[in-house]
Amino acid sequence: MSSEANAAMSGAVERIREIVGERGRISEPDRLEPYLVEWRGLYRGATPLLVRPADTSEVAAVVAICAETGIGLVPQGGNTGLCGGAIPSPGGDQIVLSLERMTRVRDIDAANFTMTVDAGCVLADVQRAAADEDRYFPLSLAAEGSCRIGGNISTNAGGINVLRYGVMRHLVLGLEVVLPDGRIWNGLRTLRKNTFGYDLKQLFIGAEGTLGIITGAVLELFPPPRSIATAWLALRDLDACVELLAAARDAAGDMLVAFELMPGTGLEFVLEHIPQTRDPLARPHIWYALLELAGSGTGDSAQQKIEAVLEGAMANGIVVDGVIATSGVQRAELWKLRESMSEAQKKQGASIKHDIAVPVAALPEFMRAATDAVEARLPGIRVVAFGHAGDGNVHFNLSQPPGMDRIAFLERWQEFNRIVHDIVIGFGGSISAEHGVGLLKRHELAHYAHPLELELMRRLKQALDPQGIMNPGKVL
Amino acid sequence: MSSEANAAMSGAVERIREIVGERGRISEPDRLEPYLVEWRGLYRGATPLLVRPADTSEVAAVVAICAETGIGLVPQGGNTGLCGGAIPSPGGDQIVLSLERMTRVRDIDAANFTMTVDAGCVLADVQRAAADEDRYFPLSLAAEGSCRIGGNISTNAGGINVLRYGVMRHLVLGLEVVLPDGRIWNGLRTLRKNTFGYDLKQLFIGAEGTLGIITGAVLELFPPPRSIATAWLALRDLDACVELLAAARDAAGDMLVAFELMPGTGLEFVLEHIPQTRDPLARPHIWYALLELAGSGTGDSAQQKIEAVLEGAMANGIVVDGVIATSGVQRAELWKLRESMSEAQKKQGASIKHDIAVPVAALPEFMRAATDAVEARLPGIRVVAFGHAGDGNVHFNLSQPPGMDRIAFLERWQEFNRIVHDIVIGFGGSISAEHGVGLLKRHELAHYAHPLELELMRRLKQALDPQGIMNPGKVL
Repeated sequence: MSSEANAAMSGAVERIREIVGERGRISEPDRLEPYLVEWRGLYRGATPLLVRPADTSEVAAVVAICAETGIGLVPQGGNTGLCGGAIPSPGGDQIVLSLERMTRVRDIDAANFTMTVDAGCVLADVQRAAADEDRYFPLSLAAEGSCRIGGNISTNAGGINVLRYGVMRHLVLGLEVVLPDGRIWNGLRTLRKNTFGYDLKQLFIGAEGTLGIITGAVLELFPPPRSIATAWLALRDLDACVELLAAARDAAGDMLVAFELMPGTGLEFVLEHIPQTRDPLARPHIWYALLELAGSGTGDSAQQKIEAVLEGAMANGIVVDGVIATSGVQRAELWKLRESMSEAQKKQGASIKHDIAVPVAALPEFMRAATDAVEARLPGIRVVAFGHAGDGNVHFNLSQPPGMDRIAFLERWQEFNRIVHDIVIGFGGSISAEHGVGLLKRHELAHYAHPLELELMRRLKQALDPQGIMNPGKVL
Repeated sequence: MSSEANAAMSGAVERIREIVGERGRISEPDRLEPYLVEWRGLYRGATPLLVRPADTSEVAAVVAICAETGIGLVPQGGNTGLCGGAIPSPGGDQIVLSLERMTRVRDIDAANFTMTVDAGCVLADVQRAAADEDRYFPLSLAAEGSCRIGGNISTNAGGINVLRYGVMRHLVLGLEVVLPDGRIWNGLRTLRKNTFGYDLKQLFIGAEGTLGIITGAVLELFPPPRSIATAWLALRDLDACVELLAAARDAAGDMLVAFELMPGTGLEFVLEHIPQTRDPLARPHIWYALLELAGSGTGDSAQQKIEAVLEGAMANGIVVDGVIATSGVQRAELWKLRESMSEAQKKQGASIKHDIAVPVAALPEFMRAATDAVEARLPGIRVVAFGHAGDGNVHFNLSQPPGMDRIAFLERWQEFNRIVHDIVIGFGGSISAEHGVGLLKRHELAHYAHPLELELMRRLKQALDPQGIMNPGKVL
């Protein structure tokens, strides 16, 4: 920073410190550490000040000072993002604003099936608060114990229940946002239908904090699942995945809420590295699907229906073996196999990741093409592709060849991204299905997005944040 | 128009006529008539030329000429809108662009549960094309036999299945749009998850053609309902409506797809004016609910579940009488009572309409407050409020006192709007739930929207259509 910028920053920091008070600020290096590092360690930032405002008006006051002085501001929720979107620049020229003290459930209206929450609420707390009123908030993902609802909205989170309930964007009925000039937009409507002018909240959903700071939200709730059934199935082959999905939706209809794909390699990694796991089937297979059915009506039997799905799929050879959970404990064991995937892969050395989506029917062909391409480039590389196959979304991850140098492998991140992403685009897919852009895929956006799309995105940014102070350097 | 503007218009009209050819243009007054009148007769426009392009590239070429010459352009689908959004100005200074020749189903991908269509497809044709592939497109509304999908998207249509499937915005996965400068944005992605930059399609959904012309769309499909049950229930009173909704969602969960409210007055009007209708119950009641349950899985029994709902609701006195349809014919008869509501009301003289939504639990209190207020202002006025109570959305319509002069009553439209809308806003509601703004509610938007919201909307308009040629004078 120039000395002029330094002076401006010092002045602003001093004013902001007063606004938020002692509990609302952190600047000691050791306490700052967890806020400055992306959890996979890919990014590390620096900041002269982290603020933790107590409420929306404090957020607004902080933003107003940043707007006045032109200082960049990085909003942060649970810091569980995978693309560096919540990490400030290493230059120390940006202030970090954490929503972690804003954790109030403002209101639950059970009759209206809505709840209004502070943006800093942890996702699992939101789920629990809804359940306490016999309601269901369906967003569910691995980080739910620590990610925060404002981050879920800002990244338009996906997860395991999208097949039935849609992405986060579909679950938001209203927003409260502090705009880049420090004014508060109160769009906390609790309505399911509203066509009164442009739907402004859509701008901020998925914008990764680059157009404003989400401080509150109205979420849509649903009747809670009363009957749940979970199955772990061994597939005939990869093509059987698409056939099983069609058969399961045909037989179970709306009751099919989750449809996950797991490779045999992945299960091997989990069994090897994660304590208290066991193969639910008698012998290993190449591909598995994890299905969950849920019925929300009285007397619904998800169990009966999943048995019908399994029976049908085994009769026509789509599924070659399988087990249905007979207890909550067994259900948790099956999900643990799926959810330990990332952690187990870590133990196999470095990995290069791709969060991609293609049309469902194209999934097997994409997987074969991409696997062939990366194996041809680096013999010994191990493809571990798993995830939300029901949405066409897989985490196409590459583990390093055994014995290869970790750093040498990671240095080829861009090279393998290019190979895989080119194939994704060829299938009409997305190279950021549910993790957003942040820092990690900013260059990929510039590379792959059509110039017209980039131009439109920049026009939006310019219209809402002409000074460019909101999460500078992210997304665009 | 000035003579200069006249000359510019003549030149542009000539060039556009050549682009679209003979089949693609209409300028004879008698053939133009149906395109220039809003179907309730509230608005009448004029135009030197109506174009009906054959495809997206013709649309783009027409828009490019309008951009070059600064001529306003009014996109039109099925011209079934209720707010005048598709009607040109009376001054004859705007060209109308109808999508009615663009009716191609471009692709159906059954495995991916998506279809890609031209914006001019009639909604009922889209529903049928999906059904032919054993898939379901859930948007359903009274005008479905003539409204077009581009209009449904541009107004973010609602209708009767929102409770289970959401509004139109939730059913759109991709868009193709001709921008105000004539460039084509191809956003026809068929993905359920995509967080690769700002979600540009959200801008055009619900923008009523003021930011660009939607020419194609990717729609999300669902497993088809295999079992349907419909019931006509007499409610204890208005409060019982909210209690029944809660009980029905509790018992039927996701199977509850439609929950409509009908007043006794409305049923009387229907029975009086609509041939081949009869009261399904033995004696008249003050309030009725029409419920529909649908199960999409094999072996689901919507019938069994609706019987349980009825039984429970009668046992605790929420419902005092009711009938469950036992055949498709009977089901159609029940729906006819609801769908004939608007037509029957017409025969009772002039009516002043309000398309409003409030939080579900506030519905009875809102209805009482608004009814008291309008009856106090004009004794003899008849409130006929009906609609999608499951979404908190009712059409709060006012029939003129019997014998009053029709015109004298309609001249008080603004006065009654103000009374009803003030009460709606007081309940945190929307004064345009599913019909949009168009011309009809433009002044209401200016009156009721927060200045900050209006400013943000204008910034968006400026960012995307700086010349202001897209559907000028609508919405903002």
